[in-house]
Amino acid sequence: MNSFGTHFRVSIFGESHGNSTGVTIDGCPAGVPMLESDFTPDLNRRRSGSKGTTPRKEADLPRFMSGIFNNRTTGAPITILFENTNTRFKDYEKLREIPRPGHADFVAFKKFGGYEDFRGGGHFSGRLTLGMVAAGVIAKKIVSPVKINALLTEAGGMKDIEKAVDLAIEQQNSIGGIVECTASQIPAGLGEPFFNSVESLIAHIAFSIPAIKAIEFGVGFAAVKMKGSEHNDLFVSPEGKTKTNHAGGINGGISNGNDIVFRVAVKPTSSISLVQNTINIKTGEMTELRIEGRHDLCIALRVPVVLEAATAIVIADLMMAEQRIKRIF
Amino acid sequence: MNSFGTHFRVSIFGESHGNSTGVTIDGCPAGVPMLESDFTPDLNRRRSGSKGTTPRKEADLPRFMSGIFNNRTTGAPITILFENTNTRFKDYEKLREIPRPGHADFVAFKKFGGYEDFRGGGHFSGRLTLGMVAAGVIAKKIVSPVKINALLTEAGGMKDIEKAVDLAIEQQNSIGGIVECTASQIPAGLGEPFFNSVESLIAHIAFSIPAIKAIEFGVGFAAVKMKGSEHNDLFVSPEGKTKTNHAGGINGGISNGNDIVFRVAVKPTSSISLVQNTINIKTGEMTELRIEGRHDLCIALRVPVVLEAATAIVIADLMMAEQRIKRIF
Amino acid sequence: MNSFGTHFRVSIFGESHGNSTGVTIDGCPAGVPMLESDFTPDLNRRRSGSKGTTPRKEADLPRFMSGIFNNRTTGAPITILFENTNTRFKDYEKLREIPRPGHADFVAFKKFGGYEDFRGGGHFSGRLTLGMVAAGVIAKKIVSPVKINALLTEAGGMKDIEKAVDLAIEQQNSIGGIVECTASQIPAGLGEPFFNSVESLIAHIAFSIPAIKAIEFGVGFAAVKMKGSEHNDLFVSPEGKTKTNHAGGINGGISNGNDIVFRVAVKPTSSISLVQNTINIKTGEMTELRIEGRHDLCIALRVPVVLEAATAIVIADLMMAEQRIKRIF
Amino acid sequence: MNSFGTHFRVSIFGESHGNSTGVTIDGCPAGVPMLESDFTPDLNRRRSGSKGTTPRKEADLPRFMSGIFNNRTTGAPITILFENTNTRFKDYEKLREIPRPGHADFVAFKKFGGYEDFRGGGHFSGRLTLGMVAAGVIAKKIVSPVKINALLTEAGGMKDIEKAVDLAIEQQNSIGGIVECTASQIPAGLGEPFFNSVESLIAHIAFSIPAIKAIEFGVGFAAVKMKGSEHNDLFVSPEGKTKTNHAGGINGGISNGNDIVFRVAVKPTSSISLVQNTINIKTGEMTELRIEGRHDLCIALRVPVVLEAATAIVIADLMMAEQRIKRIF
Repeated sequence: MNSFGTHFRVSIFGESHGNSTGVTIDGCPAGVPMLESDFTPDLNRRRSGSKGTTPRKEADLPRFMSGIFNNRTTGAPITILFENTNTRFKDYEKLREIPRPGHADFVAFKKFGGYEDFRGGGHFSGRLTLGMVAAGVIAKKIVSPVKINALLTEAGGMKDIEKAVDLAIEQQNSIGGIVECTASQIPAGLGEPFFNSVESLIAHIAFSIPAIKAIEFGVGFAAVKMKGSEHNDLFVSPEGKTKTNHAGGINGGISNGNDIVFRVAVKPTSSISLVQNTINIKTGEMTELRIEGRHDLCIALRVPVVLEAATAIVIADLMMAEQRIKRIF
Repeated sequence: MNSFGTHFRVSIFGESHGNSTGVTIDGCPAGVPMLESDFTPDLNRRRSGSKGTTPRKEADLPRFMSGIFNNRTTGAPITILFENTNTRFKDYEKLREIPRPGHADFVAFKKFGGYEDFRGGGHFSGRLTLGMVAAGVIAKKIVSPVKINALLTEAGGMKDIEKAVDLAIEQQNSIGGIVECTASQIPAGLGEPFFNSVESLIAHIAFSIPAIKAIEFGVGFAAVKMKGSEHNDLFVSPEGKTKTNHAGGINGGISNGNDIVFRVAVKPTSSISLVQNTINIKTGEMTELRIEGRHDLCIALRVPVVLEAATAIVIADLMMAEQRIKRIF
Repeated sequence: MNSFGTHFRVSIFGESHGNSTGVTIDGCPAGVPMLESDFTPDLNRRRSGSKGTTPRKEADLPRFMSGIFNNRTTGAPITILFENTNTRFKDYEKLREIPRPGHADFVAFKKFGGYEDFRGGGHFSGRLTLGMVAAGVIAKKIVSPVKINALLTEAGGMKDIEKAVDLAIEQQNSIGGIVECTASQIPAGLGEPFFNSVESLIAHIAFSIPAIKAIEFGVGFAAVKMKGSEHNDLFVSPEGKTKTNHAGGINGGISNGNDIVFRVAVKPTSSISLVQNTINIKTGEMTELRIEGRHDLCIALRVPVVLEAATAIVIADLMMAEQRIKRIF
Repeated sequence: MNSFGTHFRVSIFGESHGNSTGVTIDGCPAGVPMLESDFTPDLNRRRSGSKGTTPRKEADLPRFMSGIFNNRTTGAPITILFENTNTRFKDYEKLREIPRPGHADFVAFKKFGGYEDFRGGGHFSGRLTLGMVAAGVIAKKIVSPVKINALLTEAGGMKDIEKAVDLAIEQQNSIGGIVECTASQIPAGLGEPFFNSVESLIAHIAFSIPAIKAIEFGVGFAAVKMKGSEHNDLFVSPEGKTKTNHAGGINGGISNGNDIVFRVAVKPTSSISLVQNTINIKTGEMTELRIEGRHDLCIALRVPVVLEAATAIVIADLMMAEQRIKRIF
């Protein structure tokens, strides 16, 4: 189902080239100040147009359809709509029988029997993250003073990200990247055993962001080469502050009050303009494919703000479970 | 909450040194053959006792409390109980004010205000995975012919795992490991956009297994150094078989019919018998701690069967969502 | 939360005098034919304008915002929007301190601390049932050949409903009514023990329709005067057909294959133009209130189509649980 | 599914003549004092043995399997088990082909394909309410100072209940009854629009109690004969106290601070020892049936404590949603 969260519940709908994409947020406290302009900074960070991203331009103006009155949340569900304007139909029709390697085309066809909206990835498009970013703007407000910050730390295997993007443009071949996210000023005690650990919930929502294929908390995979005596974070204050943060701020699935730190791997976008071999699923014949249309060469550039939003949604939900956010703000 | 799954719903309860741990499975089809002996192989794989694991011995006999009649499931919820017998109380009382570094002691105290069952990790104990393994036995039956297989591929940074364990015993220091899981004969089309991708659900449940700190699907973190033209898995059959499987059998969050492949990082157990510095959270004074009791030096040895169970639970749930499992078996 | 259903999940949003009301349906199979005109008959049945209903006129045109492509459902969430056009603001501002007796004004203020959208009942308005009717149109399609039919059988205590409405108009006093709903061609076996009996789910959603205060299945309250030998419905066919239907088609919470029959009580609308005594909640002084604005004298006239929709949503959900509706239609 | 509640979540399992019935409560705050003897009064009220109830005797001793430590709740899920001791098998085998009129036998067979535990109603037995009563004991503790009280006000159509029961015994024919429940000292603001009104949630859980076929809030069905000016409850204090309570303490689905009052109709038990006509579902032949075994002549006698428990569970859940119950008690 297209919903996430128990107390702060986010539901996503929409398609890349349909009428709209949008989001409904249920469970947000009443009284939170909310202007359309509050969404501008994060929506701009997500927006394409810069070097390495798709040339498709969308205004991405949030329309409040419900739940906001007199510039405040009302306590009723908030629906925010983004109408699609710069849509194209023709580019996609011909791809139906020739699924793009690495793309959701094939699985969408298998799952929905050919009735899926196949235009530009339809419901599988990265455009759906608009709603997640909008929900994140609201979540960030209510989790204050918790701060969430994500950065692209590596692209195409390089720390110099501008150089990596230039190279990708030159080669017309997409590249991946690593995004690191830190949530600070986190209270101890967030997360629910047995199934809803902080890691479980963050990983759950992070893997709904297109192109993310791995996640690690704290030192993550590096932990497998450490001894217990090295990995254990020693307490240095009765409030739980630790000398190191190998655990990424989480023990036993529960926040320990130190920064929550994790990294995700963003794979290279599957849509590339280079010629690829693929198969015609109707005829069974091998064929060559050159994908036209507008695509991101380094989608990882646009992931940080989406990952922040995802994290904020989880933190909001967990803080509400712990009654750390008032019902009336 | 201590439940997971929409159609095949698993609820875990219990404590390490309380009366019991157990599991309730709701949504299992009626008519599935079920004997207590069916659980023996996987429970044995999970059991401690071998080199590198805790010397605590428990019979781990599953008791069917409901939902099974005439050696078949009835369609009603199945509750399976494991009574604890080999419990100790004294070992843990003194640790209350001196939280073990890297352990859930501190966060449990913060979360439950001192009312938590602190004996042996209480509800945070790895002993809770008994219920997950039991649910996995049932899930594996109903997902047939899907096969799920997990292996410890590396421990303490070494491929020779026996050597790694010997070294850990010698040093009395815990070690981590990497477990790789493969699910084969998977139908295409499992997984639900936007939030319930296959990766989302597997990661969600995997991170509820104690000590797991990272997960990667397909080539995972290695994807960030690949170009799109390298990472894309080329189709070689109209059924979706691909030449490579960099995506780990999942595109756009949906299974593509190739094997689902992923790896998790298991951190070294926090409980070690070496002396560690820690803090008395009541007095605020630094103190030395030497943990007694019975612990696993390489908990990763016991993870594969648990990870298989976790995966089987997700696959069962997703196959039920797709109506690929009959209501009456 | 503003969602209902497990497999066929309906989420409602909106306000009476805000930008819109609407609905998102998640879990609908792909491939269901869907035109905007398919919604016209039921939306017309719900619409006001006839004798005894509010003079507020709204076009109530459904706008498909997502999930429908080439006149069929895609399998992705369907969002349908109804924009409000004929809104008024001034009528409601002055009522803030003087809650209308019997209305949701007072409780909304208590619950949302004054941040609620108070215009015309805001999120508590009967206008929210638009989304439910729209979801019902979709549900009715997929539950076919099940037929659902609701009728107003009594209004203002009279069987002659037109006369009852005339009398209400004459007296400018609102009246209630009884609506009876029948679902026929129901398969046996719908409903889930222990908590999700057919009665539980129908009652749950029925009581979300404004003004409904009672529900009875089969002979309902009359059962309390019957002996077991009288109440028991005797089987007359091996398929479960019974001679009588005192149980309303449900035994042990599960459909038995006979018609599901139930009745709801609709209370008289609280908003009336007669002068009423009430209290100023700020000053504590008693005051007289004469409610202006546009109201329904007999809201029960508009309930049947909403009750059908509510029932169809439950039946769709339960049939999907039993895998009686294909994932791809 | 066999679970109910969002914040205070109750899961029921078990069978009438299987090993046990029981309940898991998830979400209960840590620190609530809890002794097995706390359960005795309500379990005794539910117990059979008095005039008009089944002669089957069970000890009904609650066993705490998890979640309770040092006589307090720990914050982890609480599982309470009731082992069945006085079970009989032979009585039921012969009924398989001859479903009892009015009973769940037939629908259970249809739903679970013959794999259901058919002994004594199996999972459909009134014995499952043991778990609900146990959950209610916990819920009543945490909702304090809210008081919940239910009474049998009418049996077999008579106010003199003892006389009604004597008559039933004389005629060996079962009778129904009306149970009225009042919850007092309720805070205003409980209940969630759009779908989770107080009426919706109470009705949902009430209809999971076997034999309940109708529910009405406040004046209920009598409202349909009242004018708006009669039905509206006039405010007499700024805190929302009303002169009358026709609405049963609920407006717009939200508690208004007055007593919540509702009534349920309990049908006569279907199992009677009088000879009834029925059909052999295998042969299709009409046959006579005389039900042996141990049954309740007036199950309504045992409903009040179950209905209180059901109500307490809903109130606990809604108070937790409003953060009116501390996470650590």
